[in-house]
Amino acid sequence: MKIGILGGGQLGRMLIQEALKYDDEFYILDPSANCSCANISYFTQGNFNNKQEVIDFGKDKDVVSIEIEHVSVEGLQVLENKGVKVIPNSRIITIIQQKILQKQFYEEFDIPSPAFQIIQSSDEEIVIGFPFVQKLNTGGYDGKGVQIIKAEKDLVNLWDAPSVLENLVDIEKELSLIIAKNEQGEIKSFPVTEMVADPQLNLLDFNISPTQIAEDIQKQIDQIAEKFMKAANSEGLFAIELFLDKNGKVWVNETAPRLHNSGHQSQEGNANSQFEQFYRVLKNLPLADTSSAGFSGMLNLVGEENFSGKVKYKGLEEVLKLPNTYVHLYAKEETKPGRKMGHINVLGNSREELLDQLIVIKSLVKVISE
Amino acid sequence: MKIGILGGGQLGRMLIQEALKYDDEFYILDPSANCSCANISYFTQGNFNNKQEVIDFGKDKDVVSIEIEHVSVEGLQVLENKGVKVIPNSRIITIIQQKILQKQFYEEFDIPSPAFQIIQSSDEEIVIGFPFVQKLNTGGYDGKGVQIIKAEKDLVNLWDAPSVLENLVDIEKELSLIIAKNEQGEIKSFPVTEMVADPQLNLLDFNISPTQIAEDIQKQIDQIAEKFMKAANSEGLFAIELFLDKNGKVWVNETAPRLHNSGHQSQEGNANSQFEQFYRVLKNLPLADTSSAGFSGMLNLVGEENFSGKVKYKGLEEVLKLPNTYVHLYAKEETKPGRKMGHINVLGNSREELLDQLIVIKSLVKVISE
Repeated sequence: MKIGILGGGQLGRMLIQEALKYDDEFYILDPSANCSCANISYFTQGNFNNKQEVIDFGKDKDVVSIEIEHVSVEGLQVLENKGVKVIPNSRIITIIQQKILQKQFYEEFDIPSPAFQIIQSSDEEIVIGFPFVQKLNTGGYDGKGVQIIKAEKDLVNLWDAPSVLENLVDIEKELSLIIAKNEQGEIKSFPVTEMVADPQLNLLDFNISPTQIAEDIQKQIDQIAEKFMKAANSEGLFAIELFLDKNGKVWVNETAPRLHNSGHQSQEGNANSQFEQFYRVLKNLPLADTSSAGFSGMLNLVGEENFSGKVKYKGLEEVLKLPNTYVHLYAKEETKPGRKMGHINVLGNSREELLDQLIVIKSLVKVISE
Repeated sequence: MKIGILGGGQLGRMLIQEALKYDDEFYILDPSANCSCANISYFTQGNFNNKQEVIDFGKDKDVVSIEIEHVSVEGLQVLENKGVKVIPNSRIITIIQQKILQKQFYEEFDIPSPAFQIIQSSDEEIVIGFPFVQKLNTGGYDGKGVQIIKAEKDLVNLWDAPSVLENLVDIEKELSLIIAKNEQGEIKSFPVTEMVADPQLNLLDFNISPTQIAEDIQKQIDQIAEKFMKAANSEGLFAIELFLDKNGKVWVNETAPRLHNSGHQSQEGNANSQFEQFYRVLKNLPLADTSSAGFSGMLNLVGEENFSGKVKYKGLEEVLKLPNTYVHLYAKEETKPGRKMGHINVLGNSREELLDQLIVIKSLVKVISE
């Protein structure tokens, strides 16, 4: 089967890696000839934000999907009208790629998400209370395009662009749910994962899966997942990023219509990974078992501050000596501060054991330049 | 790092798949433009049996290795003399690729292997007792080039070519040990695997790992492994195929200087797979943990009799519904009777559970043509 993917980054690479167990042909559209997928796929260098390039790329494929949501949905709509299978469908990508539509979508379908105000420019009257989060309508990614406005005096920093202003949640835990649906309507989710963020880089840092949560909280999450999947009305694999607040209430932070960083530990931690599951969605195959025997965790390898250029992974050999430890690099030649260059998965018997090992590993390995 | 591999079949494919966790560039030399590795590597179409083609292919690589032993060792010798790292070294490949040298090697290094006679042609006097196995000196592969001569009257069938004639072992079990050594001299083996062969196709059919054997037998195997690795005197990953006879004695059947079918269940069955281990050997990295929590098994998917042409995997969707079951296909377009097209790994808590599941799977899936 000819599978076309918009985007050739690490998510595409790990999808192809998993799918090498099967017989399909992967076609990748990405602007960079050095992207993580260039040498392991049928590669087209091009702009996935350009309507015509998306149409040209997708028109002869059996299915077209994404590994990044910032793509030309107009191109995908044309492909859908031509009868090409697009997963997830262009409607839900359109909604998710614009923060304003995404918030309105949660509101419309009664999916709990923090109270918000929409602005088109910084001139508008701000009615939401302080502190709040400003999220740019488009262009936000990996913590970019998001800032916290603490008090009246910080309003001078408000970005002058269409945005969502959102109440700050008093966060107890950040959680994530990866959930998949195939064409037959089968739906399966992974165990809920806990994310521990790096406050400085605003990047996902550690994942722990499964998280330990009370039955009531799991129930809230199940309800959110059910409402979301009904409202999304699309095949695909989705990551629902959640806040658990200090009062025990669960809120949707945002959603990604694709493979997600918070599911990477599933590569060794679960009976099947998010990549296997997404592959099965693309092929409309029976969904895979997502259970886990023990606990798994993940640490992102991001470029250190003050290092730019040809990447070097300092301390990696020490990490390779550790048991229950799995290194994943993304074949990116150049590092820069904060760039996601790889991740390391660990397996263990408890949350505490995993955290201890992740902290050791974090101290051992550094992503620097030569 | 530039890693060159002679051969682009499924072993190379699964090596590359595993190594996509890292950052290296894989170069493949194979005569077939449709081979399993062609579209996932830097691919050169060419003849790995041709001395000059091997030299041209390998001279600018950091390391050159094999996924099939029937290659030009003369070419590899030239590369070694030029200072290119060749793993395993050309000496041990030369020995293993010729059955006569291989038998003499076992004899020289006191490695137990069945008594034998060497012949250059069928005219020679046969002194070995009946029944015996004739193994052609070269060209044997996947059960080809091997026949049993039961009695005097069958001597008319004796192939007229340089061969080893070998005493038939009264086999209790066929076993296999996968063992690896890196440049630093670190040596690590996988748990011993039991092979259940298909008498008709003379192909490996089921693997079960670990096998259940008495301490004394494990000790014999450990001694064989130690002698073999000392005598081989080479980095690499090796498969030592063993016979356990009905008297409890272990014999070496033959050895492969490469990744091996009997190690495929390590993909999901062990903490790390034979492919990860071989990759680490190629890079001289610390060897990986090879332990297994439970039992794992493997079933080869081979082309059914009477089907040739574009492959179709009948019943595969049913198999994908089963838990603890992992399908691996080799991206070969055409099936023919007996051709290895893929395999299926299963995980379980006992040998019996695995055998039951493997038999169910075998009845579900058939490799046919469209």
